[in-house]
Amino acid sequence: MRASVMPRSSIRRLFTSAMTLKREGVKVYGLHIGDPDFRMPQRIADALTDAIEAGHTHYSPMAGIPALREAIQAHRNTRMDIDIPLNRVIVSQGATQALNSSLQLCVDSGNRVLFPMIYFPNYIQQSTLAGIEVDVYELDESFQPLLVRLEQQVTSKTRAMLINTPSNPTGVLFPPGTVRALYDFARRHNLWIISDEAYSDYVYRGEYLSPLSIDWEFPEEERRVIAIYSFSKSYAATGLRMGYMVAPNDETAFRLELMNEPLTGSLTTPLQWAMVQALAEDDTAVRRNALLERWQLAGELLAECGLRFAKPDGGLFYFIDISPTGMDGDTFADRLLAEEHVAVVPGSGFGLVGSRGEDGNLSFTPNELAARCVRVSFAAPLADLEEGVKRLVGFIRRKS
Amino acid sequence: MRASVMPRSSIRRLFTSAMTLKREGVKVYGLHIGDPDFRMPQRIADALTDAIEAGHTHYSPMAGIPALREAIQAHRNTRMDIDIPLNRVIVSQGATQALNSSLQLCVDSGNRVLFPMIYFPNYIQQSTLAGIEVDVYELDESFQPLLVRLEQQVTSKTRAMLINTPSNPTGVLFPPGTVRALYDFARRHNLWIISDEAYSDYVYRGEYLSPLSIDWEFPEEERRVIAIYSFSKSYAATGLRMGYMVAPNDETAFRLELMNEPLTGSLTTPLQWAMVQALAEDDTAVRRNALLERWQLAGELLAECGLRFAKPDGGLFYFIDISPTGMDGDTFADRLLAEEHVAVVPGSGFGLVGSRGEDGNLSFTPNELAARCVRVSFAAPLADLEEGVKRLVGFIRRKS
Repeated sequence: MRASVMPRSSIRRLFTSAMTLKREGVKVYGLHIGDPDFRMPQRIADALTDAIEAGHTHYSPMAGIPALREAIQAHRNTRMDIDIPLNRVIVSQGATQALNSSLQLCVDSGNRVLFPMIYFPNYIQQSTLAGIEVDVYELDESFQPLLVRLEQQVTSKTRAMLINTPSNPTGVLFPPGTVRALYDFARRHNLWIISDEAYSDYVYRGEYLSPLSIDWEFPEEERRVIAIYSFSKSYAATGLRMGYMVAPNDETAFRLELMNEPLTGSLTTPLQWAMVQALAEDDTAVRRNALLERWQLAGELLAECGLRFAKPDGGLFYFIDISPTGMDGDTFADRLLAEEHVAVVPGSGFGLVGSRGEDGNLSFTPNELAARCVRVSFAAPLADLEEGVKRLVGFIRRKS
Repeated sequence: MRASVMPRSSIRRLFTSAMTLKREGVKVYGLHIGDPDFRMPQRIADALTDAIEAGHTHYSPMAGIPALREAIQAHRNTRMDIDIPLNRVIVSQGATQALNSSLQLCVDSGNRVLFPMIYFPNYIQQSTLAGIEVDVYELDESFQPLLVRLEQQVTSKTRAMLINTPSNPTGVLFPPGTVRALYDFARRHNLWIISDEAYSDYVYRGEYLSPLSIDWEFPEEERRVIAIYSFSKSYAATGLRMGYMVAPNDETAFRLELMNEPLTGSLTTPLQWAMVQALAEDDTAVRRNALLERWQLAGELLAECGLRFAKPDGGLFYFIDISPTGMDGDTFADRLLAEEHVAVVPGSGFGLVGSRGEDGNLSFTPNELAARCVRVSFAAPLADLEEGVKRLVGFIRRKS
């Protein structure tokens, strides 16, 4: 039974443990959730109120309201210097739903998808439900793809590969040469590329190249990228569940619109009006700069812990190998929460590998790299972040 | 490829055709969508504004915010005189998502589900994506189940049956005796019951019995009903996509909560706060009474068309066999829109039957009953409804 073997996200496991502790009145330092405490910009709040006032509380066109699709089109085209036609922009009920639609559209049940070795937990949940088999492309100790090994990881049944740069949870940005190498690989094997770009507005260093940009260098009939974006991170609106997809051709756009029917019924209409206003002003740099400060602070404090770790290039997380403490990530996270009231997410959930038992049922165990890491969010307010990371560092030093 | 063979909803086909005509400046009488023009109650609008103001724009607990789950629990328990524990209430991003979660939880890929012969199109889309095989239980000319035929329609692979009373699209309420017979049948064959109760607040005549009420007559370990409710219809909030499920036991509740992860990522937080206020006042009767008036008017006008049809007991639709016009439902709907600018939905989409070609791929054709019907919504404002139904009646009389 797919639904009953589908693994739980380790993020949510810690979310629940931390919540339980909070309910007991304990002050918890929450370094587990990728949700900055930023206030959603006032213009978005006002637009939502206006939309309700104007009676925009009824069904939405299935691909999204025209005003939002047009705003997205203008935003993306300006940003990337390409010329996406309007019909290729499909609004989704969050990037999560967009991922689900894209995975099911690109890879049929029984066929295979390639994920990076360390990946976001929703990917494996959605694949499990859809009966999609998962292979991973290997990452080195810096969480960069081992390009020389790619060819060994593709099979005759592989239909798509997922690229997520900057990555949740590793924070790594794939350099332009790596993105091009992955794109060429996908092209050689006629794979779809599902490009999860939820964190593309939060890059702190290095050069960002989207697979979508490469795709538009090719004639339409050769394009293969479905790019997925989220309003959650860029506009401090995680609780509004708005995202969108850019489709490479008319047929894919039509199919993605169709997938919205069974997966959403419709889309939240007033929230779409709010997102039109989100895009009306380009203020993501304000939030990026605030996060840059937290990234810097967390990096400086973490440097004291005595472990080697890669500083992230983007996103909201440090992904740290804590194996010198003698603990695996799950034990580490549980003890850290219990002893120091600091919540971080065990890496295990970011590298689950499915295997079939004698009964044919899937079960999941973390790969070795994921199992020895924890994800530390630097999205928390500065004071909490400082105290939380100090406690984390103290804990690591005591245990190492 | 499941996603590429998944049928399009005929509702959305007509929605698009009607929209195209409107954009050309044509006045269209919209009897196609089940979305009354009611204004969403002001307390809900205010609650949404307040929620945003209070900063409730961040992630939600996966089963919903406690305030909403508690409000739902109180509402359901009062309404049905049962005692649902809090953990059995799982909020969903609309009843559509709840249906998707429930179907995938109850029926594994390759196993079978029983739908009524005339059913809501999302059911078949979701089943197709999940690789669930569909059988139907037959309905008579009044759209009531042919109970004597039930046993012939269950197989060793059947895992669940779907009950939708009042029905979209037929408007039929199954009498209490029928609901009990369906329940007993499910019990005998150890089937789950997925009870789609989206229209349970809109009953105009007859006695309403929910499968959930029967389920609570049994000890917990024997319960089998997942009941699904929608705020869309009851609170004039179709564009807010909020719904919820009631689970029969702890394990099912946990699994449904887990299904929210890959299907929603989270739930829209501010809209949940709005729904807390939706439940704070019991004013659904106001909207029910307004619909009763439309139901009455549409029924009186339709009586002039010369066709025999069943007056609905609940919901928002008349489902009418228009075969005496010599047209099938699709031709009828297309011509009616072109000639009279009245939009109704062809029945075909409510009775699609899948069959596998030599290549093993599914294709869908409507069953005979569905193909000769159209769905006429009486949700439109009175003036539009009156003119639209008069045009419809004139059209039928000319063609019969």
